[in-house]
Amino acid sequence: MKQKIMDISIHLFDKKGFTETSIQEIVDELGVTKGTFYYYFKNKQELLTNIHLNFIEYLLERQQEILNDDSKDSREKLRSMILMVISSIKHRKKSARIFFREMRNLENQYLDQNIQKRDQFRKNLQTLVEEGIEKGEFQNHLSPDMITRGILGMTNWSYYWYNPDGEVSEEELTSVYLEMILHGIDKKA
Amino acid sequence: MKQKIMDISIHLFDKKGFTETSIQEIVDELGVTKGTFYYYFKNKQELLTNIHLNFIEYLLERQQEILNDDSKDSREKLRSMILMVISSIKHRKKSARIFFREMRNLENQYLDQNIQKRDQFRKNLQTLVEEGIEKGEFQNHLSPDMITRGILGMTNWSYYWYNPDGEVSEEELTSVYLEMILHGIDKKA
Repeated sequence: MKQKIMDISIHLFDKKGFTETSIQEIVDELGVTKGTFYYYFKNKQELLTNIHLNFIEYLLERQQEILNDDSKDSREKLRSMILMVISSIKHRKKSARIFFREMRNLENQYLDQNIQKRDQFRKNLQTLVEEGIEKGEFQNHLSPDMITRGILGMTNWSYYWYNPDGEVSEEELTSVYLEMILHGIDKKA
Repeated sequence: MKQKIMDISIHLFDKKGFTETSIQEIVDELGVTKGTFYYYFKNKQELLTNIHLNFIEYLLERQQEILNDDSKDSREKLRSMILMVISSIKHRKKSARIFFREMRNLENQYLDQNIQKRDQFRKNLQTLVEEGIEKGEFQNHLSPDMITRGILGMTNWSYYWYNPDGEVSEEELTSVYLEMILHGIDKKA
């Protein structure tokens, strides 16, 4: 039921907005009582927080698996992380979109939890970049922090435009981005 | 007065949200009457549209100047465009943020105008990428469309995190991004 409440709320928040959607509408849509809602969530704030934590914790777990996989070098780990983010769009587009749009509506106690997890995601990616530099796989003259934010920007931005059911496959987009990030677009003389 | 209404609305929409801000609050804040508001804008929708058009048209004009500058090669033009976007953050952060968050609230007729301009911005950047490929300055084995979206992602994402008053200058960030985009982070053997 907890998942059902989150799923229907993602749908309603995306369609109507967080502020404009009442708890009554959420429970009406599911045919349950407000009591059911309050059994799982203290309020709408906690619900919105849970929707996003759910999404980001899933990504963090998968990211950790990639980081721990000793069979891969840094380039391969980077490919896996980019593919992971792009592949998550198909099923998680709405919950990511809601977060960016509605974070203004979260009180600090809830917002902090989310921001901490998001920072963790960035820091894990940065760890990978730094490992690659240490091992001599990546260039050492660029700031790992800025490289990381550049990679995050490219991949996260796909949430705004990429259509997983369109002509370009997730693997194809990943390959182009990885090639850009690793070798750049300049044609050397 | 039109600009003043837009400025105060950017501030209020960013703080309270578009839906939650009334025309009455906007005019109260300025000490004018509702009549003054309606002299310039048909409704809040038109105001929100104007706020964003104002922002995107400024970027489009500057972008066109860069494209037309025959003294620069494609790499230099790319640097100028990246710097332009990053430099716009300082003064335009709020209006960009409002747009992404509130576009859901725009009716189609208003939304279309904005989307058309945004597409134009992407297409101009793609023109630059394609010119670079034609002239043999950029690699020709990667999709210009995806390269363009990758560059846009890196630069546009900075709206979420970059602090123009922080330690990293706009020029510095531009240099790291340009270096990444042109030459990549891979350390060649």
